[in-house]
Amino acid sequence: MTIRYPNGKVFKRETTVKNQRKTSEITYSNRGMSLEDDINETNEYYLQVKKAVIHKKPTPVQIVQVDYPKRSAAVIKEAYFKQASTTDYNGVYKGRYIDFEAKETKNKTSFPLQNFHEHQIQHMQAVLDQEGIAFILIRFSITDQVFLLDASYLITCYLAQKNGRKSIPKKEIEKCGHLVKIGYQPRIDYLTIVEQLYFS
Amino acid sequence: MTIRYPNGKVFKRETTVKNQRKTSEITYSNRGMSLEDDINETNEYYLQVKKAVIHKKPTPVQIVQVDYPKRSAAVIKEAYFKQASTTDYNGVYKGRYIDFEAKETKNKTSFPLQNFHEHQIQHMQAVLDQEGIAFILIRFSITDQVFLLDASYLITCYLAQKNGRKSIPKKEIEKCGHLVKIGYQPRIDYLTIVEQLYFS
Repeated sequence: MTIRYPNGKVFKRETTVKNQRKTSEITYSNRGMSLEDDINETNEYYLQVKKAVIHKKPTPVQIVQVDYPKRSAAVIKEAYFKQASTTDYNGVYKGRYIDFEAKETKNKTSFPLQNFHEHQIQHMQAVLDQEGIAFILIRFSITDQVFLLDASYLITCYLAQKNGRKSIPKKEIEKCGHLVKIGYQPRIDYLTIVEQLYFS
Repeated sequence: MTIRYPNGKVFKRETTVKNQRKTSEITYSNRGMSLEDDINETNEYYLQVKKAVIHKKPTPVQIVQVDYPKRSAAVIKEAYFKQASTTDYNGVYKGRYIDFEAKETKNKTSFPLQNFHEHQIQHMQAVLDQEGIAFILIRFSITDQVFLLDASYLITCYLAQKNGRKSIPKKEIEKCGHLVKIGYQPRIDYLTIVEQLYFS
């Protein structure tokens, strides 16, 4: 049975994720890897080569009941997923604050805006107001393309939803976004785009 | 019974925390408020006045079992606290990356270094290497004093532990750290020190 986070993301047990990672290291393929796995590996690579310090935030959980058995670790017995009030990834690159959210879609021709919720949009606007660097990474999983889209562009599209358009056409993303190079190491080299866009 | 996170911090149910917050809003006193509560309120204030965007990261939890009852929210039935690989707080102030950890002690004359674990020290060093701003906030709860200490200073002390000194004397903290003003709003005005230290 598929278990989902409140944001619709599929919940996976960590052991499963680890196994997938191992397999894909051998096959040199992205198939079966979630966008999150790919970004985590990319960030791990950036950290190791001292290029940037960017981490995924832990999933926010509301803890209700904890057992504390003698001589062993505390066990959380009841907890619930909470909706995140910020984006999933943040960190530092060349002294500047980096903040982004990553989403994938199976849609071929457009990206549905329901993938983002209002708190995240507000957070991105607040980051921009503080002169932070904020963007989203969007993967079209059918074609395995990843685009970087500046947050200000997303916010404009999000606010324009009241005019009836509930998604961003892929053609527009191709024009206004930036195609990120997919590779082995780093898997999703978004910092190259960040460098071009915000540092030159 | 007192339940503790792996880092020794006392676990509190969120409802309890909310009640405490209400009481303390009336009594205008820090008594009974944890350092974490005070910093969260400070960050909330900074956010509201558009001074900075700084959040506490969620507690990292390893989820093992989730129930997904029909027509109601997913329930986490088994999970464990994981050790954080980074510090607890980060965000952006005037475009720059801010990263810190907050700890309190009941000790009167020194701050025990066991409050920090190696991953956090490594993380702070990585942030400094990326020209981020990294520091710690230390509260001596007996005197209700909060000091800001630059991460490079903490790292030096931490690495010097092999020489036998397992804590930083308060006198040294008073000399090399910076006393943070405690007030009502913001409760712990650390950004004033950050501004003096890193922006002038």
